[in-house]
Amino acid sequence: MQLYIGNQNYSSWSLRAWLIFAQFDVEVDIIKLKLFTKDFYRTLENIAPTAKVPTLVDDDVTVWDSLAILEYINEAYLGGKAWPSSAKERAKARAISAEMHSGFFDIRNELPMNCRAKRKTALSEGAVKDIARIDAIWSEQMEQYPDGWLFGEWSIADAMYAPVALRIQTYDIALSDKARRYQQKLLNSPAMQRWLAEASLETDIVEEDEAGAPIPALFLTFQLNH
Amino acid sequence: MQLYIGNQNYSSWSLRAWLIFAQFDVEVDIIKLKLFTKDFYRTLENIAPTAKVPTLVDDDVTVWDSLAILEYINEAYLGGKAWPSSAKERAKARAISAEMHSGFFDIRNELPMNCRAKRKTALSEGAVKDIARIDAIWSEQMEQYPDGWLFGEWSIADAMYAPVALRIQTYDIALSDKARRYQQKLLNSPAMQRWLAEASLETDIVEEDEAGAPIPALFLTFQLNH
Repeated sequence: MQLYIGNQNYSSWSLRAWLIFAQFDVEVDIIKLKLFTKDFYRTLENIAPTAKVPTLVDDDVTVWDSLAILEYINEAYLGGKAWPSSAKERAKARAISAEMHSGFFDIRNELPMNCRAKRKTALSEGAVKDIARIDAIWSEQMEQYPDGWLFGEWSIADAMYAPVALRIQTYDIALSDKARRYQQKLLNSPAMQRWLAEASLETDIVEEDEAGAPIPALFLTFQLNH
Repeated sequence: MQLYIGNQNYSSWSLRAWLIFAQFDVEVDIIKLKLFTKDFYRTLENIAPTAKVPTLVDDDVTVWDSLAILEYINEAYLGGKAWPSSAKERAKARAISAEMHSGFFDIRNELPMNCRAKRKTALSEGAVKDIARIDAIWSEQMEQYPDGWLFGEWSIADAMYAPVALRIQTYDIALSDKARRYQQKLLNSPAMQRWLAEASLETDIVEEDEAGAPIPALFLTFQLNH
């Protein structure tokens, strides 16, 4: 089984898919492609219909979206344990995960993931609302599952929110105490520490992600964050 | 069980969730709220954390995203039959569905869903690419499942692509023969005909969706299409 990812310093959607393999020690070959290089497109165009990362190839199965990869690994290799076992909690975890999958554009736009950077930036009104919503999600879950993952045990929802936990650290965004506690638990987990260690060894610079000024939303959405 | 939706003429994300109930005759109370009215926000703010449609309330379970609602109903009421039974095909169906869930912004932006309208519009380069990708997905599936749904039997993937089938009709966009055959099958299905009949009884005008000029992407993404 092969998982194609982008630069670990930058590729937020890659991180989501990568995490489930690291968290549950599922055997996989990680193939890292340098974002937006000729090699990146040449490799992916023969594999994935969208030529984006992450893409998973498991024998004759190809999956080219982060959430779909997480669902696939959960079903095919984990007996379903990467979602909460209660139907009610599973529905909530899926709603929270889908909300991240299709939204939070201002954060994605204004706070590109960049593991090694430390930045200060002014947030738009939309990004402030996005952060408040994320804080509310995390805090509410921490009330129910203190000191735990979002749903007590690690779940796909934690993978979906991992990139934004990194963004919040990079851009030094204030959080409530409960939300901060969750963010720190996530960032200090062995799987995330491994991702950060691997990212720190990278030396490539992707200009689009280093820009201080916001990048047009559509560019980000289509090319960078998928 | 209650499903909160927006105006059927306009609300593309509502259509996706609504379809699974109509397709499988799952009992539900449909509560239609007029988009962006005071009543819309007042009703939803007590129910859903994001105050968006569609939102499902099933006793003590609340689900506030279209894809998460489809997954929930599939698991809780349909014994899983709304995804293909083969693991490989299910992975593909989820990838296709997730691709729609998080992408195709140019189409959403330039071709707002509007069941009763007939329009001609110039497409941006991005929208042309979006249409080509949708045509490729539909055509490829029709090669494997001629005259069928995307995966032979009706699946959640068909729900995810229903709004774009309507947009393509409204704006009279050219498709390949295979893709056109699928679009027509979808539009002529009893569930879609019921949606269109109900939409045709509506008289409210939502100005944001009637504008000939493109609407800013972020406005659409956050407020209109969710």
